[in-house]
Amino acid sequence: MGKRMGKQTIKIESKPRIIATYSIVGPKEGEGPLKDYFDFILKDDLNGKNSYEKAESSILYSAITECIKKANLTEQDINYLFAGDLLNQISSSNFAARDLNIPFIGLYGACSTMTESLSIASIFMDGGYANNVVAATSSHFSSAERQFRFPLEYGSQRHPTAHWTVTGAGAMLISKEGNFPYVKYITTGKVKDYGITDANNMGAAMAPAAIDTIKQHFQDTGTTPKDYDLIATGDLGKYGKTITEKLLKVYGYDINSIYMDCGDKIYGGDQATNAGGSGCGCSAVVDCGYIYKNMLNGKLKRVLILSTGALMSTTSSLQGETIPGIAHAVSIEFGV
Amino acid sequence: MGKRMGKQTIKIESKPRIIATYSIVGPKEGEGPLKDYFDFILKDDLNGKNSYEKAESSILYSAITECIKKANLTEQDINYLFAGDLLNQISSSNFAARDLNIPFIGLYGACSTMTESLSIASIFMDGGYANNVVAATSSHFSSAERQFRFPLEYGSQRHPTAHWTVTGAGAMLISKEGNFPYVKYITTGKVKDYGITDANNMGAAMAPAAIDTIKQHFQDTGTTPKDYDLIATGDLGKYGKTITEKLLKVYGYDINSIYMDCGDKIYGGDQATNAGGSGCGCSAVVDCGYIYKNMLNGKLKRVLILSTGALMSTTSSLQGETIPGIAHAVSIEFGV
Repeated sequence: MGKRMGKQTIKIESKPRIIATYSIVGPKEGEGPLKDYFDFILKDDLNGKNSYEKAESSILYSAITECIKKANLTEQDINYLFAGDLLNQISSSNFAARDLNIPFIGLYGACSTMTESLSIASIFMDGGYANNVVAATSSHFSSAERQFRFPLEYGSQRHPTAHWTVTGAGAMLISKEGNFPYVKYITTGKVKDYGITDANNMGAAMAPAAIDTIKQHFQDTGTTPKDYDLIATGDLGKYGKTITEKLLKVYGYDINSIYMDCGDKIYGGDQATNAGGSGCGCSAVVDCGYIYKNMLNGKLKRVLILSTGALMSTTSSLQGETIPGIAHAVSIEFGV
Repeated sequence: MGKRMGKQTIKIESKPRIIATYSIVGPKEGEGPLKDYFDFILKDDLNGKNSYEKAESSILYSAITECIKKANLTEQDINYLFAGDLLNQISSSNFAARDLNIPFIGLYGACSTMTESLSIASIFMDGGYANNVVAATSSHFSSAERQFRFPLEYGSQRHPTAHWTVTGAGAMLISKEGNFPYVKYITTGKVKDYGITDANNMGAAMAPAAIDTIKQHFQDTGTTPKDYDLIATGDLGKYGKTITEKLLKVYGYDINSIYMDCGDKIYGGDQATNAGGSGCGCSAVVDCGYIYKNMLNGKLKRVLILSTGALMSTTSSLQGETIPGIAHAVSIEFGV
């Protein structure tokens, strides 16, 4: 059973193991620098469906079912599915869950969903409430673009600080036994809003939440940047990453040498994605792909992942509201 | 620590207590038959704000903060807030959480959110991961109407099987000590879809999920309708309620004498709400008001509450998708 540490952190004592992950990405992500780490690269980002929304739901479904297969389990073995996505009413997740015979907990944390779902999954495992659970999320460039901005057909020009929503889905299967990376701490974030109103600068909107959660994680656990081989934020992009590095240094934490941002890392400089990737799928596929596989091969032993979410809706933005952000942190260890 | 029972149920051993609840409703709900059970009735459903969305967020914020006050606690005492709502990107909850200094887990289960949040809250309490948590949700007739159907100004006619979204917010504070109603079982639902496409007949869309979860609850726990003084579904309305009663009888469970539906109960027959109430706020305010207060006064000792969610989005409906449903059950006991 877990132990509360400080204000926002739980020490997960029972080492729930991430025994399998699965990541699917779109063609553009499959041309980026992390392409070799993904399990499947779509040739067609419609995935044979007749809408982008159905395509997104289908890749989330595939990520979940393929992850279960990879772990040599079946749907019947999974006690809970924790999932969410960016679309209104998390429709990608609801429709994926419809085709699965698994009790379902729907989440919404915008792009923070991968670590939100992994956090709750870890609690359910640690407390003995489940034997196997799946944490998953997805996003799709074209469904997000037309929901939050404009349909692609508009061909609208992109702001230099704008992000490119990742087409991708990631799933993690958490279980009890075996020699696999395991969850050690979870630090649940608070909603932070520093008054950013520009929906084309989500890195700046989310950075305060990431900074707050990282700082709180260090304070709660007594760890420092030296205790980690890698700290990976979700989708702050290159501008949000710079803010995070600088402000954490002001707070006395120099993370620069071990810090990456999934959104900054997923696309190459020649891919015209401006600030970098975003979307629930961004940290999901980088965590399930690049980070998990580098833990399995021994290159990373102690990792802190933080998915980061911008919590606006189109309605809140039209009504002049600023953009709140949230970040949840999960530390994972292997071979320490 | 909890114990798995059957396929979808956890027995919550530590009796997490619901030490306080708070319910706020709109003027129409305040004229209905349950009016004496609500803590606060709005005179103006805009609550002094300049949009219905901001009004909804403000009543959710009030329900949470007033619930904390009623328990003689402060924000600092609350380890987690679990909340969600119907609006795109659960903006009511995100913006309410922005003004609270509490770690936040955002949920989306449509109108199933009250028991979804209470289920996760119970797990966090039972496992020893928290000392005090709040589970909350809200809905607003006017924000839901213009998001899912039409702005009120359209004056569109309502179908006989249509529901009326409840303007209301409910919050429960779950803690460790004291002589209060406590959670005994949670049964987490699966997504069920029996092919209903009519968004004006959500009772029929959600009934299969409610039936499935009730049946599974009985099977997992070995309980029967005789073990309960009340079984209360969330917002099936009068048509969904009839389907649920009839089909459960076919499965061998006659619940009629102890069965109510919050949506069927919240409005009077003269209030022209057709099938009855719906929305996350519907079961929230009835559970926090009528049911909780009747447990405190000893009239109800063993209750099974099920909030029920219809998981469509406007996009999924426009794309010809059917309406999936989900229902999560929580049993609560007091003075047994």
